[in-house]
Formats: sequence, C-alpha cells, structure tokens
Amino acid sequence: MSAASLLFSCSMHVGVSHPKLAAKSSVCLPNQPWNHLKPKTSFGHSGVSEKSKLSCKGDEIMWRAGALQVENAPSFSVGQKFQLDDVIEAQQFDRETLSAIFEVARSMESIESSSSRSQMLKGYLMATLFYEPSTRTRLSFESAMKRLGGDVLTTENAREFSSAAKGETLEDTIRTVEGYTDIIVMRHFESGAAKRAAATASIPVINAGDGPGQHPTQALLDVYTIEREIGKLDGIRVGLVGDLANGRTVRSLAYLLAKYEDVKIYFVSPNVVKMKDDIKEYLTSKGVEWEESGDLMEVASKCDVVYQTRIQKERFGEKIDLYEEARGKYIVNKDVLGVMQKHAVVMHPLPRLDEITVDVDSDPRAAYFRQAKNGLYIRMALLKVLLLGW
Amino acid sequence: MSAASLLFSCSMHVGVSHPKLAAKSSVCLPNQPWNHLKPKTSFGHSGVSEKSKLSCKGDEIMWRAGALQVENAPSFSVGQKFQLDDVIEAQQFDRETLSAIFEVARSMESIESSSSRSQMLKGYLMATLFYEPSTRTRLSFESAMKRLGGDVLTTENAREFSSAAKGETLEDTIRTVEGYTDIIVMRHFESGAAKRAAATASIPVINAGDGPGQHPTQALLDVYTIEREIGKLDGIRVGLVGDLANGRTVRSLAYLLAKYEDVKIYFVSPNVVKMKDDIKEYLTSKGVEWEESGDLMEVASKCDVVYQTRIQKERFGEKIDLYEEARGKYIVNKDVLGVMQKHAVVMHPLPRLDEITVDVDSDPRAAYFRQAKNGLYIRMALLKVLLLGW
Amino acid sequence: MSAASLLFSCSMHVGVSHPKLAAKSSVCLPNQPWNHLKPKTSFGHSGVSEKSKLSCKGDEIMWRAGALQVENAPSFSVGQKFQLDDVIEAQQFDRETLSAIFEVARSMESIESSSSRSQMLKGYLMATLFYEPSTRTRLSFESAMKRLGGDVLTTENAREFSSAAKGETLEDTIRTVEGYTDIIVMRHFESGAAKRAAATASIPVINAGDGPGQHPTQALLDVYTIEREIGKLDGIRVGLVGDLANGRTVRSLAYLLAKYEDVKIYFVSPNVVKMKDDIKEYLTSKGVEWEESGDLMEVASKCDVVYQTRIQKERFGEKIDLYEEARGKYIVNKDVLGVMQKHAVVMHPLPRLDEITVDVDSDPRAAYFRQAKNGLYIRMALLKVLLLGW
Repeated sequence: MSAASLLFSCSMHVGVSHPKLAAKSSVCLPNQPWNHLKPKTSFGHSGVSEKSKLSCKGDEIMWRAGALQVENAPSFSVGQKFQLDDVIEAQQFDRETLSAIFEVARSMESIESSSSRSQMLKGYLMATLFYEPSTRTRLSFESAMKRLGGDVLTTENAREFSSAAKGETLEDTIRTVEGYTDIIVMRHFESGAAKRAAATASIPVINAGDGPGQHPTQALLDVYTIEREIGKLDGIRVGLVGDLANGRTVRSLAYLLAKYEDVKIYFVSPNVVKMKDDIKEYLTSKGVEWEESGDLMEVASKCDVVYQTRIQKERFGEKIDLYEEARGKYIVNKDVLGVMQKHAVVMHPLPRLDEITVDVDSDPRAAYFRQAKNGLYIRMALLKVLLLGW
Repeated sequence: MSAASLLFSCSMHVGVSHPKLAAKSSVCLPNQPWNHLKPKTSFGHSGVSEKSKLSCKGDEIMWRAGALQVENAPSFSVGQKFQLDDVIEAQQFDRETLSAIFEVARSMESIESSSSRSQMLKGYLMATLFYEPSTRTRLSFESAMKRLGGDVLTTENAREFSSAAKGETLEDTIRTVEGYTDIIVMRHFESGAAKRAAATASIPVINAGDGPGQHPTQALLDVYTIEREIGKLDGIRVGLVGDLANGRTVRSLAYLLAKYEDVKIYFVSPNVVKMKDDIKEYLTSKGVEWEESGDLMEVASKCDVVYQTRIQKERFGEKIDLYEEARGKYIVNKDVLGVMQKHAVVMHPLPRLDEITVDVDSDPRAAYFRQAKNGLYIRMALLKVLLLGW
Repeated sequence: MSAASLLFSCSMHVGVSHPKLAAKSSVCLPNQPWNHLKPKTSFGHSGVSEKSKLSCKGDEIMWRAGALQVENAPSFSVGQKFQLDDVIEAQQFDRETLSAIFEVARSMESIESSSSRSQMLKGYLMATLFYEPSTRTRLSFESAMKRLGGDVLTTENAREFSSAAKGETLEDTIRTVEGYTDIIVMRHFESGAAKRAAATASIPVINAGDGPGQHPTQALLDVYTIEREIGKLDGIRVGLVGDLANGRTVRSLAYLLAKYEDVKIYFVSPNVVKMKDDIKEYLTSKGVEWEESGDLMEVASKCDVVYQTRIQKERFGEKIDLYEEARGKYIVNKDVLGVMQKHAVVMHPLPRLDEITVDVDSDPRAAYFRQAKNGLYIRMALLKVLLLGW
C-alpha cells in the first residue's frame, strides 16, 4: 500500500463521529503521525471506554521515531473537524488543524481573564506522568487544567514505576494509570515514548517532551505567538538564532513554518551548532526560501521575528572553550533592537541565560514572556479539544 | 483480663453512634487490631473534633506489630454497622465488614463511570503522607479522593519531617498534619507505623503500606476482584504462585480467604521462597484446605484464580543465581492459559516483569489490569465510609 | 531624602485604591520593607494586570536584606485599610495591620470548622515555589488555600529552574510562573529572595522563609497564638528559651512584641546561643524591659508564655560536645509546668526533640499543637486579604 493510498483512506474518515467504527472497515488505516484517530474519550463518563486501536503493517511506511518527516496532511471539507485524539509530534498537525487550535487558544485568553473562572473541565482528571523533571512545562499544563476547572494527579518521579528492581514496562504503567485519570500528559527521556504510550492508552496522551524527540506543544505555542504578535503567518521573515543543531524547538518551528506561504527563514548560528541538512532540504523541497548568515544585525533589520535560543552547554561536554566561544557570538541586545522594525518581535523558548540582555525585557518588542504565557492558552485549548472535542 | 472478655466488651459497643462516649464506661476497651473504634470524624465540620482514644494495658495481649494474627471478629446484629475508624491491617476486617465495603465499592463503579462526577467528598481534604515513594499506590488514592470531589495534600518526601537534624517523632508529625486535613493516607518504612499514627490521630488513618508489615487496601482489592471476576468467594480454588515467602500480598490474601467457606489454596513456588509455616498453620486451624505443588499446569487447570506474583530480586541480595533460578521457574503464559478453565482468571498485584508473558494480556481471563482498577473502587469506598460513614 | 520624609510620603498614600497611580505623583516612594504598595491583584480577573512597581534610589536608606530593622510604620486614619500586596518580612506589619490580620484569622477558625466548606477563593490558583523542601510549611499553605476553595500548583524542586546547566534568574522564573497562577508562596535558600521576587511579580508574593532571613508567617502565627491563649498582648511576660542566637523565630517574635505596651521579655539560653545584641538594643530603644536569666524555673513561674525552641544541631558543626551540653540545659518538663501559672502556656515553633518532654503534651497549657494549627488560620487570612482585599 502506497503512502498516497494511505492518505486517501485516511481522509475518507475524518469527520466521522466514531472513528472506532472506521476500524471495522476493510481499509487498513495505519497509525500515521498525523492520524491519531480515536473517538472523543468518554472514559468514566459513558459506556464507551476505549479509543480505537488502529495499526497495520503499513505503519512502518512513514514513521520513524523522533525524526521530523514530510507528508501531506489529509484534506477535509468545510464543516468537518479533524478528530484529535493524542498530541504526539509537531508534524501531525496540518495548517487547518493549527488554525482550529489557535482559534480555541484565542478563546482561552478571554476565559482565563474573565472574572468568573471556567468549569469547562470540572470533574476531569489529568495525570502528569513525568519521567524527568520539567517544572516549567508541568506547571503550565497543570495550570491549564485547573484554569478550566479540572484537577490533576501529579507524578514527578514516574521513573520509580520502572525502577531497576521493579522494571515495569511503559505499556504496563500506562494501562494502570489510565484507570485513574481521563488524560495523560507525559514527559519521557526516550524518543518515541509518547507514541508508544498513545498506542497503548485508551485515553488521550499529550507528549510534553520525549528525550531528543518531540515537544509539540512548544512548537504550537511558538507558531501561535508569531500569529498573535505579527498578525499573520504567510509572508513572514523569521531569523532563527543560536543553537540550531541541538534545539528541537527551532527544528520543529522551521518544520511548521513550511506549512505557510511565502515564508523566508534566516539561520544565524555559530559554526559548531549550525542547522542540520535535513531541515534545510525539507524547506527547499517545500519551496521555503532560507539563508544562512553570520550577520545578526542585518538579519534582525529584515525580520518580523528574531527567535533567539540558548546555547546548550550540556551538549558540549568537556569542550568548554568551544561552548564559551559559541555562547558569546550572537547576543540580542539594545543594539539589535535598534535595527529591528517597529512591528517585529524577539522570541525565546526560555530559560535564557545572557543571550538576550536584561535591558531588552522592557521593550514592547520583547515577546518571550508573552510567548511563555501563550503556552498556557495552547495547553488549555488542547485539553479542551482532547477531552470535550471541538 | 482475658482475650475473650476483651472481645465481649468490644462487641457490646459496636453500633454505638459515638464510641467516644463508650470510653467513659468502666470497661477497658483495648486498641485491638479489629477494634479501631472512633466516632465518625467531624474534624472541621462540627464541634466534635476528636475521635476516641482508647487504650489500656490489655493492648499487649493480642497485638504484635506486623504479624498476621488470628482472632474472632466481634459479631453484631443485623441493622448495626461496624464503626470503621481507621484502615490499618487486613485482619481488622471480618466477613460482614468486607461484604459491606465491597457493596460500597460496587456502587463506586457506577459513580465513576457516570457522566456527572460525584461531589460526595467536596470540601474534604486527604493528606498522602508518604515516607517512601509509591507512585502507583499514591495515584490510586489521590484519584479515588478526587473522583469523589475531594481534594488532596501530597507529601512524597515525608521523611523530611523526621530528618536527622530535626528528628521529630511520628506522633508529633501526625498531630501537626491532622490540623491541616480530614484524613491521612500513610506509607511508611516501619512495620507498625500506621497503627501508631492511628493511635495518635483524631482523624481517620489509612495504612498504604508500612514496611514489611501490612498493605490492607491491596488485600481488600484482591478479594474484591475475586468476587467480581468469579462471582463468589465461598468454594473457590486459588493458586498462589511465585514469591510466597516475601510477598505480603499473598500472605494477606491467604489470611482473608480463610474467612470464607470451603476454600482450597494451592501454593506453587520455587523452594527458596516457599509459603511460611505461620500461614499454613493458620489455614489448617481455620479448616482451610491447602496443598503445595510443583506443577503449575495441574494447579492452573483446577483453579478459579491463578494469582501470580513477582520474584522480588531485592530480597536475594548478592545471590543473583538463586534469583535467576527462582525467577524463571513458574511463568504464566499461553500454555498455562490453555489448561485454565473458561471462567478462571489470572491475577497479579503488579508491577510484573516477565512472570506473565505479554501475550496473555489480550485474553479476557487476564484480570490484572481490572484488578488494578478495582483498587480505585476499593479506595473510593474506604474514603467514603471513613469520612461520611456507611 | 530622610527616612522621616519617606514615611510621610508613604502615609499620604495609604487608603488610595490604586496605589499604582500614586507612582505617577512626584514623590519618590521607595520600596520600603513596610511599604509593599500594590493594587489588589486582579490578574486574570480584570483588565488591571500589573501591580505598581515603585522604586527609587532612596530604597537603600532603610533596607538591608535579612536584618530586622527599626522604623515607624505609617499611621493611617480610621476607615482606611493598609493595602497589603506582599508578605515579605515581619517588620512590614504595624500594630494595626497585625490586629486586622488577626481579626480575619479569627473568622477563619469558624469558617474552617463550619459544616459547609468555604468557596471564597474558588477559581484562584496559588503556586508553592519551594527552592528547598519544607513539607510542614508547604502543607500548611496548601491546606489554607484549599480550605478556602482555591487550588494549588506545587513545586517542591524549584531549584531545577535555576539548575547549573540552565541558570535562569529568579526574576525570569517569577515572570514565567506569574503567568500560571494568582499568588506565589515562595521558600528560598537565599536571604532577600522573597523581596526580589515581590519586586518582579505583578501578583502577590508570600515569603515562606528565605534562608537565614525571614519567615514572617511564623512570626504572625506566634503573636496570634499568644493573643488567643492569653487574651492580650499588652502587658504580657514572655520567656524565650533555648537557641536564641540562631532561631529566626524568637528574633522575629521579640521584634513584634516590641510593638505592644508594657511587655517584659526574659531570655533563658545556654551561653553559646545567647540572644544577640541587636535585638537587645532594639528592645531597649523601644522601652521594652528585658532580662537574661539562667533560672528557667524562676522565669517560668513569672511568665504568661514560655516559648521553648530547639537547639539547632546543624549550627554546631563538629562541636558535638558543645551541642550536647547546650541541648540538655533547659528542658520544659512536668517540674516546669508545676511552677507555671494556671493561665500561662508553653509554646514551641516545632519540630521539637526532647526540649519539651512528652508528658507535658497532655497538660492544657501545652499550646504548641494549637499554635501549629493557628498557622493554618493565619495563612488562610493572608491568602484571603492578598487575593480579595480586606
């Protein structure tokens, strides 16, 4: 079965209210990255307690764990909504789904700031199953759940489940935990863990970062922030600065930006942490213009978005001198602000060290704390859609 | 004072709505394992804020920390409910109380799956005071509390209370924590800790495992699962397989099964981890038939329940070869399923390693994940009864 | 600008409903210890989302991190309430504010014990940002929030935010976390950290202990307990016993007691841990009578309050013999109780080792567990006032 026919068979089923039923059709519907088809979860709420478990050998065709991959998302007609069952990786989202999520996120901004708090998810439980600590991400998800009236089971040391002495598989842990909660937000140290969890769970799973693999909610909040700050995504100019080799954030962002028209991307990075060829080739294949530059000032003067990232010391091992050299090379400071356009913004996934100087913070174009806040709205939106549907 | 007269004096008081008053009578009512008499807690809800603190020298007669002991539970007439104040050890429950708890647990299954969530425990707070980590048990309790509309104070590192430098007693910690919550769920590394906590606290205490001692809610959920899966407890045939020497689970289960009629138990275990004599003698004294066997296939073909357990590597220390030998000896796999009866089930307290092969999971007789889920219902039931009464 | 004029400029603004506006006046209003002027936070509830950020060079005049300092609190006319924006240090409170907080705390006692739980803070989120563990303090704050119907985001390992590899500043962390919550309760290992957090945050910050610096809610609950137990604060006799050199608790208490009339304080401590001169001088300057004594029995017989403290082993390093000598010197036992007046009480900040013998616990004058419980009421009161106003 070719990739094309898989896509076709998939697109036939979007909009079906119970995709579980679709599994009974004769078409083999593989567990594609962009195809996490499950019925709206109703665990603990109605008789339907299992999401569809679709898999077939074709599964292998388009999926390799942790890699950003190229495919066409299924098209669907107006009035039909894509069924969102899990959030596993950035590439599962097409432009329409992104747009729909952003619309919900926008509505979350007003819900969160209204005087009467929402009880939309009252009675729902979310488990944060964190195999490695990430206080920032965990707090953001837990706040999102609680802002909508839901409640949370917290697990910061989920590694204990699979401790040396006990050695339980991830699958067994998921089968146990899914009995206690309505949705699982998982952070894991292994690439592909979220996908395995989603394949096991009968309730929705959100990937909150799996090792060097994916961190899709970060990618979504980045794109959402650009749209909120600049007002558009087609036709934008984005400078990606800093550690482009190791940062999954910038890799995912580049990937998602390719879904929009007339985008130009500038890569500004020290030589040791240049953007890798796979992304460059992907952008070229999608007709996205890109350029490498060593001149941050020039790039900053042209861009709508200067996306700065932290040079990750932990990636340099003992080569401290290389790290120190890379680290000081491209700093966003008042001088950079000076050449930036009035409508342009500075973004950063945080935490930052000194790659953006503190005196930039007070400039209205410093968007990074608003960006962090947008993470809340995106996560509220995803929880709402996964638990209640569109 | 003899044990018999103690039992009599105790049975006089069951059904009294305020056992606290009973303490004022002239009868010395010892803090028996099966005699956790306290008024329904009303801490923070009404003027009555202390449960009865009954103790006398007779206390020593029947209690030795951590050991499973033999006694007759007090009988009480129809229409009277046993006052449940704490959950400390499996042997505190008689057959009638087990039956009453299971009835409540059954009602929790429909509450949990109903479309509108329960607010039964709204406004109540549970503290999970965990002196050693047990994410699985903690999540189960916290889910139970939240599924009933209650809320939770979480303590995963309660050891800090009694850190070297500070050295606070358990009793002082309990006296502080009981001021912040309505019920305490405690996990401790010392046998007997739960009993000490319950003796101090004026609010209910649930033992979520105290060292090598007790883990009564696991014992309750095991018996509940057998009844749910097989439909009866009298007349059942149960095979206990694996590590019978170290597993407190199987020891408690054997103890509780002795409360039912015409039960037969098979012990199937490697020589190094055989069931100990105390349980065998107890079963014999209760007229429970038991048999040791080295033939898992034969036992499996006869039993209603094959209860598999993990060989606990941590008990073998440096004798890795003994561990490896014991570990591989009795595996529940498709062949074992093949000889089992249609109505029989495989149970396991989880986590499992490879003592049940993964291909067993898809068989409807694989009951271990349903068993884990039953832990939720049992804990919901106990929280309900301890906080609101029957 | 002199301290006097600063005080005057400050007192002009109390009672102003939007202190933020005051910042626009020509008067430089420094960020005084007692002057945490912010508008009632309305983050996430209305359009006003930033509290006033007042600072000027005059800031240096009266503030040195971690030290207890002397100043007159601003007076304000009847009918005006002091605007409470953050709780950073004991010395920010004047007598009137203490009285107002105690009145709210008193009302919390009846709220907490009423049959229907309060929903006063329903929809509000509190983040406990703990850079070092303190289970006791954290549980007390989290219980307070939940008893009022609010919810909590818990962070026990906030140090991870500023881990070696990542190195985020406290200010950046606060700017991120304030986007997820309505109030921050922070425990930090560095003196002055709470003040820095409050200066950054646009939402209220409560100091739950910052290193050797302040632990203001402990100071408040101590004074509240004396008033509740003795019925007055003017004219009381207080014996401070034990480690007076290292205990921030007794230092803060001495400071706060100086706000009342006709107070006499006795210091009873081993030579190595005597009360330091700064507090003695401060008391003298305020006209508070104090006396050092080596005779606990005599002091106990005269006092309304015997405030015992733990000798902190961790302060003695390798000088274990000095510790052992100091530790055994002043024990509150039945003999001490024997000479104490009927209305007098024994207090202790907890945890205790053996500086109060266990047989004292059952005496009605043992107030230390009631004192711990009062911490709940004080924290409920502070959360209420900071989030909803007076």
